[in-house]
Amino acid sequence: MPELRRDPVVGRWVIVAPERADRPNALVRMPPERDDPAGCPFCPGHEAMTPPELLVHRDKGGPPNGPGWSLRVVPNRFPALRTEERMVRAGLGMYDVMGGVGAHEVIIETPEHARQLPQQSPEQVEQVLRAAQERMLDLSRDVRLRSVLFFKNSGAASGATLSHPHSQIVALPLVPGELQQELSGARKHFEEKERCVFCDILAQEARERSRVVLETDGFVALSPWASRAPFELLVLPREHRSVYEQSTAQEVRGLAEALRLSLRKLDLALDKPAYSFYLHTLPLREPPSDWYHWHLEVRPVLALTAGFEWGSGFFINPTPPEEAAAFLRQMEA
Amino acid sequence: MPELRRDPVVGRWVIVAPERADRPNALVRMPPERDDPAGCPFCPGHEAMTPPELLVHRDKGGPPNGPGWSLRVVPNRFPALRTEERMVRAGLGMYDVMGGVGAHEVIIETPEHARQLPQQSPEQVEQVLRAAQERMLDLSRDVRLRSVLFFKNSGAASGATLSHPHSQIVALPLVPGELQQELSGARKHFEEKERCVFCDILAQEARERSRVVLETDGFVALSPWASRAPFELLVLPREHRSVYEQSTAQEVRGLAEALRLSLRKLDLALDKPAYSFYLHTLPLREPPSDWYHWHLEVRPVLALTAGFEWGSGFFINPTPPEEAAAFLRQMEA
Repeated sequence: MPELRRDPVVGRWVIVAPERADRPNALVRMPPERDDPAGCPFCPGHEAMTPPELLVHRDKGGPPNGPGWSLRVVPNRFPALRTEERMVRAGLGMYDVMGGVGAHEVIIETPEHARQLPQQSPEQVEQVLRAAQERMLDLSRDVRLRSVLFFKNSGAASGATLSHPHSQIVALPLVPGELQQELSGARKHFEEKERCVFCDILAQEARERSRVVLETDGFVALSPWASRAPFELLVLPREHRSVYEQSTAQEVRGLAEALRLSLRKLDLALDKPAYSFYLHTLPLREPPSDWYHWHLEVRPVLALTAGFEWGSGFFINPTPPEEAAAFLRQMEA
Repeated sequence: MPELRRDPVVGRWVIVAPERADRPNALVRMPPERDDPAGCPFCPGHEAMTPPELLVHRDKGGPPNGPGWSLRVVPNRFPALRTEERMVRAGLGMYDVMGGVGAHEVIIETPEHARQLPQQSPEQVEQVLRAAQERMLDLSRDVRLRSVLFFKNSGAASGATLSHPHSQIVALPLVPGELQQELSGARKHFEEKERCVFCDILAQEARERSRVVLETDGFVALSPWASRAPFELLVLPREHRSVYEQSTAQEVRGLAEALRLSLRKLDLALDKPAYSFYLHTLPLREPPSDWYHWHLEVRPVLALTAGFEWGSGFFINPTPPEEAAAFLRQMEA
């Protein structure tokens, strides 16, 4: 029996329609991405195939931009935005345009071509999340940049064009629409109730239990009430925290553990699906706030975005979040 | 050189980054959808495989739900929403839920399994658009329904699960977010300027010419200034019209011609890409307005939506709309 559910933060309605799960051919099938370690620009020995490194972990020493590293951050060779652009703004008749100022960086997570994030050690995952934190802190010094999105695409169906484990950072001269909607929804909730909407979600989910996937000391992973797609996950710190960059080492370690366990459960439940994740945190240089709560959202890619979603902004999810959570809880990650 | 462009209606920013076009493997590759006419539920003789028809064009007579038709409209066998649901609304703690009241219908455009829309005759395309109009008028009598989205997915990469030419109609008990944003952007523009924002776009594009793809007597197809994806098209009536259902027969014929030519140009330019289109018009039963202008949006599916787009609501488009329009203008459809 289909039902419509409203996201408590952004107000987006979602159609939960289990009948749609019976549809033949509905799951996305993609050929695997090209996987040629010999030509992989992210493999050790191929450092010259990327722009020079911005950050590197090279515990045993060795010269920059050569082998011996355990993690590298480099500018994207095909950047969506560049720090070299000028911050011009113009109106062309009724149209508005702005220079493409920003940054687009790649975190090469490991020298091992085939060791995907869920198979990496807890320390390696922690290293990736710490690198994202360091880069965000560095980028926040450029006052032209307003926000940073840390994200990852894994698997061809997620839009990844290279299989070597990597995540990405994009710094923008604007606060993007998706984050703006969250910020204004969360601010409105706080104005009405003097409570953080994400803390309220945590409290209700802790009582109801049906959408809780896993809990660690510091973190919780949930199937969100108004999940847009099957097996979507929301990973958030139990304690109220609004600025990811200001996380303690222990908090980053806690996120690494919760993320790694979440991805391992998805791998087991869905046979290593393609997925994306992204981190939502306050815009750069904003002071910690009582009303926003940083978090990470994970989306396995099981179906394609189609005309209905594009045209309506509505999503149809054939898997009730309670069923997804029950299934994921059983997985021994 | 990347630049950011703002959509003049909804205010959405888009990154136009031609550098990204050089990225290897960036184009989506999908296996073709299962194509088995013997088991196709939309082929003549298989009428029993669909729910009973809601609308049919059967010029030569014959019994309902049997062969002899040139177009059928049937309920979707795997509906996202159903008219039989009760219009319940409830709050569950901080969460909101609503019964999945609505309708989900399929327009089987032709009995010919392999004749895709761009290859159909002008009369056939007109018949499809008229069927959409008739169904919208019929659905508007159910006061629980607030809006209707007419859309089409063609090709596996667009999310289509069956190849037999078909389009779809979803009626919703709400005005969906994407349309709401357009409505409020257009209303704001009118409040400031006493002019329709879409009429203003038509006027500026007619002067600048660089994004005009084709013009017919009654319609214009444009590459929108802030296209989210390569070769996106906006097809709209030259004259100000706000309610698609109230189109005259001549207007529907005009849209059929402009849509057919647009899709033929995309077929020639991009070698029959997967694509989606959808129609935006005022919510059901709203009287014609000075500030909104119905239109159809076409999106060829050349790349996948990835973590960056999900996380930011920002789109990265590697093809400047002016280049797409210049290329499409050359295609002899």
